[in-house]
Amino acid sequence: MRYLPVFLLLVFVSNAQVKKEQLNLMPWPQKVEVSSAVFLLNKDFKINSTGNFDARILKGASRFLRRLDERTGLFFTQAYVTKPNEFPEAQLQINCLRKGKLGLNEDESYHLSVLSNKILINANTDLGALHALETLSQLLQNNGTEFYFPAVEITDSPRFSWRGLMIDAARHFQPVDVIKRNLDGMAAMKMNVFHWHLADNQGWRIEIKKHPKLTELASDGDFYTQEEIATIVKYAADRGIMVIPEIDVPGHASALLAAFPEIGSKMNDGIPYSVSRKSGIHDATLDPTNPKTYQVLGDIFAEVCPLFPSPYFHIGGDENNGKEWNANPKIQEFKKKNNLETNHDLQTYFNMKLVPMLKKQGKQLMGWEEIMTKDMSKEAIIHAWRGVNEGMEAGGSLVKAAKSGYKTVLSNGYYIDLMLPVDSHYLNDPMPKNVDLTAEEKSRILGGEATMWSELVTPLTIDSRIWPRTAAIAERLWSNDTVRDLESMHKRLKQISFRLEEIGLTHIRNKEVILRNIANYQGTKALNDFTKICEPYKVYKRNGGGKKYFMHSPLTLFADACNADASDAYEFNKAVNQYLTDKDELSQKEIVYYLKQWITMNEELIVMSKNAPLMQPILPMAQQLSTIAVELVANLENKKALNKTLIQENLKLLNERNSADVELVIYESLKKLADL
Amino acid sequence: MRYLPVFLLLVFVSNAQVKKEQLNLMPWPQKVEVSSAVFLLNKDFKINSTGNFDARILKGASRFLRRLDERTGLFFTQAYVTKPNEFPEAQLQINCLRKGKLGLNEDESYHLSVLSNKILINANTDLGALHALETLSQLLQNNGTEFYFPAVEITDSPRFSWRGLMIDAARHFQPVDVIKRNLDGMAAMKMNVFHWHLADNQGWRIEIKKHPKLTELASDGDFYTQEEIATIVKYAADRGIMVIPEIDVPGHASALLAAFPEIGSKMNDGIPYSVSRKSGIHDATLDPTNPKTYQVLGDIFAEVCPLFPSPYFHIGGDENNGKEWNANPKIQEFKKKNNLETNHDLQTYFNMKLVPMLKKQGKQLMGWEEIMTKDMSKEAIIHAWRGVNEGMEAGGSLVKAAKSGYKTVLSNGYYIDLMLPVDSHYLNDPMPKNVDLTAEEKSRILGGEATMWSELVTPLTIDSRIWPRTAAIAERLWSNDTVRDLESMHKRLKQISFRLEEIGLTHIRNKEVILRNIANYQGTKALNDFTKICEPYKVYKRNGGGKKYFMHSPLTLFADACNADASDAYEFNKAVNQYLTDKDELSQKEIVYYLKQWITMNEELIVMSKNAPLMQPILPMAQQLSTIAVELVANLENKKALNKTLIQENLKLLNERNSADVELVIYESLKKLADL
Repeated sequence: MRYLPVFLLLVFVSNAQVKKEQLNLMPWPQKVEVSSAVFLLNKDFKINSTGNFDARILKGASRFLRRLDERTGLFFTQAYVTKPNEFPEAQLQINCLRKGKLGLNEDESYHLSVLSNKILINANTDLGALHALETLSQLLQNNGTEFYFPAVEITDSPRFSWRGLMIDAARHFQPVDVIKRNLDGMAAMKMNVFHWHLADNQGWRIEIKKHPKLTELASDGDFYTQEEIATIVKYAADRGIMVIPEIDVPGHASALLAAFPEIGSKMNDGIPYSVSRKSGIHDATLDPTNPKTYQVLGDIFAEVCPLFPSPYFHIGGDENNGKEWNANPKIQEFKKKNNLETNHDLQTYFNMKLVPMLKKQGKQLMGWEEIMTKDMSKEAIIHAWRGVNEGMEAGGSLVKAAKSGYKTVLSNGYYIDLMLPVDSHYLNDPMPKNVDLTAEEKSRILGGEATMWSELVTPLTIDSRIWPRTAAIAERLWSNDTVRDLESMHKRLKQISFRLEEIGLTHIRNKEVILRNIANYQGTKALNDFTKICEPYKVYKRNGGGKKYFMHSPLTLFADACNADASDAYEFNKAVNQYLTDKDELSQKEIVYYLKQWITMNEELIVMSKNAPLMQPILPMAQQLSTIAVELVANLENKKALNKTLIQENLKLLNERNSADVELVIYESLKKLADL
Repeated sequence: MRYLPVFLLLVFVSNAQVKKEQLNLMPWPQKVEVSSAVFLLNKDFKINSTGNFDARILKGASRFLRRLDERTGLFFTQAYVTKPNEFPEAQLQINCLRKGKLGLNEDESYHLSVLSNKILINANTDLGALHALETLSQLLQNNGTEFYFPAVEITDSPRFSWRGLMIDAARHFQPVDVIKRNLDGMAAMKMNVFHWHLADNQGWRIEIKKHPKLTELASDGDFYTQEEIATIVKYAADRGIMVIPEIDVPGHASALLAAFPEIGSKMNDGIPYSVSRKSGIHDATLDPTNPKTYQVLGDIFAEVCPLFPSPYFHIGGDENNGKEWNANPKIQEFKKKNNLETNHDLQTYFNMKLVPMLKKQGKQLMGWEEIMTKDMSKEAIIHAWRGVNEGMEAGGSLVKAAKSGYKTVLSNGYYIDLMLPVDSHYLNDPMPKNVDLTAEEKSRILGGEATMWSELVTPLTIDSRIWPRTAAIAERLWSNDTVRDLESMHKRLKQISFRLEEIGLTHIRNKEVILRNIANYQGTKALNDFTKICEPYKVYKRNGGGKKYFMHSPLTLFADACNADASDAYEFNKAVNQYLTDKDELSQKEIVYYLKQWITMNEELIVMSKNAPLMQPILPMAQQLSTIAVELVANLENKKALNKTLIQENLKLLNERNSADVELVIYESLKKLADL
């Protein structure tokens, strides 16, 4: 029912015109024109580069060539693109005028022209040319025997200059290969800022040669060497991505203080600072009154800053709860002496001490919005993150920053760790709609950044939390603000998700790994069906109060195999809404099809659970769903009256917190059907 | 038909006795006794370590704890095992007397005792204790709600001291994460030697600081830094694995000579040495008469040797075809002058020059069997590899080496790149059966090594070529030689394969990645069914003559999703043999079930192929199979006479070389059924 129509619909003939709407481009380019011709691919396809550029375009073109060959199996004769103007007659000609600089306001535009016998990429910088290759890669079409590019003219450039992804490598360490494959994903989505959260309460993740005890005492052995950092920075630069390090201070400091307790603010209570195994806001805070604090940070900056060519350095600065400061008379004394009324003032004092330290290293300070206090340097970049979950107005601090003269980046609304639907992120625009901003103020809004906090992700699952939703955020940050059709986005995102797998991301394949273990290797069909209507608890519900999951807790559970935007739920909910409006037979059939599937699924789950303890937590939900489904099917097919009491009872149970930590996202639809 | 019985059979009750035969242990221990008690796992499960040991046992115990928690979802309270005797009351007590030394003849024995309330591991060395943890991990059982260990007494130690895996990182580069996860796989299978093939015609893969041009000119940017090498050596040591580097000389030298053409043996013909993109034996050979050859190798050894604490250094030494030597008058002159009659003598001259150079670095020389010439130092280890494929007697050189006073390691019969059935590797014993060897000669046979040559594998597919078959080789090298029941091995290997996925190997998950691309994302069921009866062409047939696949050719094809030991073929062939003997109804039903499945599969493949060019190469085979299957079903079910001409025609076509590079491994069974 769901699979068959797909391949019938997608049959093209290589000379038939491909309609613009059929293209699975993401982010959608600024201007696309399609004509009826096609460029047919064969094994003699070659690439040539001309102009002035960094070697990275050669590497990028080689990657493109190999990816295309692996996707098509055409056995291209060209192995690599190794030097300028190597094959002047090549079908794909890349010309760029100069090497692009990673940073704000660089030219990333390109023009891509596919003709029947030639493909031309023209860009001012190699950054634009790299983007063009990603667009071209997405343009590939096929019929039953041939691969081809439709003839197009594409003119493209980004709407925002800062299109970022943050990965928290502190709470759960993310090895080099995880970072690399996600940089590949970013490049495919034309994202250009990788923000690397390298230190937090749960771990210190970067080698500091002068102070080896930082990683010895505060990393559990999981950290990046400086060579690894350099490798990744280079890897990112080769893909047109700037890397911003974050060392979160003065709060979020349990790990740092496990190595340097003497610069903490805590009164000696006999309990030493230690690397935390928990989530949530912690008390551990650096002592801003202690000269040694700045000495240690100076040592750290002196080693970290040179590893990152970018001019920005993120100091965190968020969620300092002030408890240790309040409890420490010496710090209170200092505040009085220096006319620092509030803890905010003290933190500004601290932050302002860092400004020249970083400037000495050639860096501008960036920090979470809490750093925006009245005396904060206007050179700082304000990273807006709080919103309704923190009792604040969504995007409020972004506007305040722009109006106050700060450059600013939006992350509120892009917290992908909260497992919210892609629609919510996609419709979240960095440029506020209902606020009057001058052109200058608007220009201070640099863009946005998806934030992958890692309390509840491991290398096994992190890709599935980042992708494919981040691709939709990438489109929001690159494309015209009028590009906001949800149906189109969903259709394209599905294909893009496969493309992301092609470059090595594991968001699709690792789901089966988790399910195989849960099923104790009895086959995953029933479990997989169930994941298509369940989503992990959203926002902070899954680990409510931080009491269930510690950093060493298993994240190989049913909730970890589930994801936002459960696919069958999306289809089912659409069908139910359609049916409720039209009472049409097709929708009814689809609804019944799904309901019956879930009845069978429940039976399979029960049998399998006899040999699979990890399935126990999901059994009650499956049974409740099945009970309701049986009633609904009988009603829809045979017009048998519904047993409303039975349905109500089960709906109530389904709505309660369950130990599987997932919500059944067809709940509202079931309720609607039961109300008929 | 195939899945359902599995979960019904596996239902245990936690107090019921688990029979020895039900345990999925691999390699099978020397002595196993099972009693009726069980040790029930719960979240309070803790580990304690006592004795004198390296920190690696703490790390190993921590990994064990986390893996067990991820498998069971029990939320253990203990996060890591961080210091000796941390929890004296812990249920699992590990005691070892001393730190084990990586190398030959070290004590790797252990005793594992599972009681109803306590688990005791006793070992002389921490290496033995690590092995015990792997055994314990494999012992885990479950019913529907509980996980438990059956009470056992296991006394275990390896039969051979050298249980190796070689990975060729030269032909296709294998990044750090690929090596790491395979080291984890090795450790799980109690293997203890990782042989790292670091240089060959197709690439130079190790940073040499004194000669950066080696990687600049001869690696395509794909190489290990010295820091990465050191990290991996440490990672391996933490898992009880010794790492042996191989720099293959004097042949296999195209990459080395691309950087240092002046030490090549070739007469200047205007064609410079270059990194090769092809498979097969190459001419490029170092010039043994040139002092600079030894100077360059000396520089290389001086940097490579200190990175590897192991006392062995593999110099390759294989497949020198002598062409360049024969064609070079200067070299011929040198031979005459030095009374070197043959090229073998000249190569021995070369090898013997390396002996003291390596000794200076604290290393003993190891090489492929070609180094075993009459004047070769008896200190060298001879790596036996040639057999019937090379026109030699299988294992002949191993016997010769042992009899001649050399220590020796067997790889003939363990060439896992040849895609041969696991049975052939499993039954290949390093200790020759029909040869009289003295005890001393026998003691020179150190063990064996699986060799993963990488002409036809990439990081996407390499795990599936190594695993699970290498687990069976590991059993051959560890367990008693009487352990050779194929049914038992197959049963256990299936479960072990899942365990290998648990530690991060991608041999299962990546198959779907390849199939999704081939199917153009239309669903993979039909393709997957087909992979279960197809195997890639074996030995050197797939790339016969080295003309089809170059190093940059796509390895994302149907043959790459297929594997040795196609599972449905294994079942079908068994059923056919049973049926031909007994004419029983059950076998007949199973045969018909499969035949009908392949008829449906063919229909699905045809429909899907309308939108998937990569499926074209497999369509003819599927159609031929379907045509035969239709006939056979009609015959088996309705006793309709077979159209033998039609069947013969299609069998003939099935037996011809196809462009999908796979063989249908039910071919013989179809033939038998058609002959009825």
